[in-house]
Amino acid sequence: MKTFNEISQLISSELNKINWSKDPQGLYEPIGYVLSLGGKRIRPALALMACNLFSDDVRPAINSALGLEIFHNFTLLHDDIMDRADVRRGKPTVHKKWDDNTAILSGDVMQIASYQFIAKTPDNQLKRTLDLFSRTAAEICEGQQYDVEFEQRDDVEAEEYLEMIRLKTAVLLGASLQIGAWIGGAGEKDAQLLYDFGINIGMAFQLKDDLLDVYGNEAKFGKKIGGDILCNKKTYLLIQALKLAKNQGALALQYWLNISDEKSGNDKITGITSLYNQLGVKQICEDKMQFFYTEGIAKLEKVTVLSNKKQELRNLAENLMFRQE
Amino acid sequence: MKTFNEISQLISSELNKINWSKDPQGLYEPIGYVLSLGGKRIRPALALMACNLFSDDVRPAINSALGLEIFHNFTLLHDDIMDRADVRRGKPTVHKKWDDNTAILSGDVMQIASYQFIAKTPDNQLKRTLDLFSRTAAEICEGQQYDVEFEQRDDVEAEEYLEMIRLKTAVLLGASLQIGAWIGGAGEKDAQLLYDFGINIGMAFQLKDDLLDVYGNEAKFGKKIGGDILCNKKTYLLIQALKLAKNQGALALQYWLNISDEKSGNDKITGITSLYNQLGVKQICEDKMQFFYTEGIAKLEKVTVLSNKKQELRNLAENLMFRQE
Repeated sequence: MKTFNEISQLISSELNKINWSKDPQGLYEPIGYVLSLGGKRIRPALALMACNLFSDDVRPAINSALGLEIFHNFTLLHDDIMDRADVRRGKPTVHKKWDDNTAILSGDVMQIASYQFIAKTPDNQLKRTLDLFSRTAAEICEGQQYDVEFEQRDDVEAEEYLEMIRLKTAVLLGASLQIGAWIGGAGEKDAQLLYDFGINIGMAFQLKDDLLDVYGNEAKFGKKIGGDILCNKKTYLLIQALKLAKNQGALALQYWLNISDEKSGNDKITGITSLYNQLGVKQICEDKMQFFYTEGIAKLEKVTVLSNKKQELRNLAENLMFRQE
Repeated sequence: MKTFNEISQLISSELNKINWSKDPQGLYEPIGYVLSLGGKRIRPALALMACNLFSDDVRPAINSALGLEIFHNFTLLHDDIMDRADVRRGKPTVHKKWDDNTAILSGDVMQIASYQFIAKTPDNQLKRTLDLFSRTAAEICEGQQYDVEFEQRDDVEAEEYLEMIRLKTAVLLGASLQIGAWIGGAGEKDAQLLYDFGINIGMAFQLKDDLLDVYGNEAKFGKKIGGDILCNKKTYLLIQALKLAKNQGALALQYWLNISDEKSGNDKITGITSLYNQLGVKQICEDKMQFFYTEGIAKLEKVTVLSNKKQELRNLAENLMFRQE
């Protein structure tokens, strides 16, 4: 069995081998740039680790794993245009460093590149991998669409939010695991259990992200604390707070939501965080996160391979859940 | 053998069967809208006609043909954002009717949809169809990138322009024919000849487009005559004119290229058209178009099926070349 670190190194080294110095450079250079910004490479790691549960040789899954990572980075590139985000991982986003048109077109060819890697999936797994990949890719766009639509709505229900993060975040973790499992030779039942493990871990991962935005350690989190609060992002915390706040609390929450001037930013963060604490929504969010985490681990435990083979996946899930960044 | 009209009807009917009324509607509705705007459906027609050369049954090629048409329309959707084009086929473009973000994200999921149809290619042809499709898709993005870059350059050579239109327009016609031929059961040599036929016809088709913009019949062409002239688009005509104009002619050409106010538009069109006529670039462009057309037909003639089976493809090529719109 390979450790997570060994797998991460393998992914880094394979990603670095891809040549993006092709003509026209104006088209391909931004792709190399986005991929050079780093990231946890969780999706390809999940694919290779799932493969490794069933096969000592993870190499047959590498190209598919790279396709998953390239696709994920493509979605970040296009999402950053739509969100008008200027910075990603401490560096200017593509549409800031180049321009919108470059970001659109480089993203398009990046999506094609992800399919080119997926197409290198071993022949006997190609068709279903391709179908799951496309279905997942479409679901991610659907999740992004809901996320955008929710910004304009004040009545987003918790269930709708959970469905949105399932689409936007969780399905790609699930698909990465399932594709890796298939290539490793898993049976359908095990592959499905790993997909479900990924979905649940993905849900927990996103709820953790919501929590870190408010309760994280700024230095470790790498983003400014309270970013979601400042832009009234409908996180699980805010949706719960909107549901639970009554009387004075509801008025205070609406007051802060209507504040958008920059100089009141810190007060707004303090004010809304204090309301969250009074309403107990941190605990509600943590409970929900724990629920998905526990569900996910239960799915993993049912996979019919020796328990010790799953230790690296257990560790990864735990690290994602109890991370401070 | 099916006639072009029979094939067109089949494509229309199959395109109409696709259900884009899915949630989230804000994501899928623009796709149905773009596809409802019409168009000649040349790419799927070429795929089915190429298939029909080798097989009486074209149905196995229908899904791949639809994938090619959906991909083509996706490129129009994203190109219209980049070109800030407000109108397509007499109707507002997606980014005008909705907004830029919708156009980006609907385009992304439309590209995924095109892959979902390509994935329905019969199993025994799937891998190479997928590879050719992805290579072609990437080339189209490269062509678009060159097209954008050429806007900022004054020294575009004729050969560079021809390579740009090969990438942006011709390769998808070639790929449509080759994929259709493969699915019909063609041998590699015939499939390659049909690809080459498509490339040459595509080159001629684009040069015809350049000519129609200046010398077309406005009512029939469906676009305003002189649109390329008004925005100094580096067409084959302008590139040749820049190369051939000397002394007074060169000064006059530069004079008009520097004119960009709206009220001088008609004078600019008249002025540049008159220079084109003096320099004989219409003839040069027509000769080049004829060269590609003849090359293309020669490739088609070499395909090893009975000559009368190719009549519909000959007719289509001729219609594309001698069209007034």
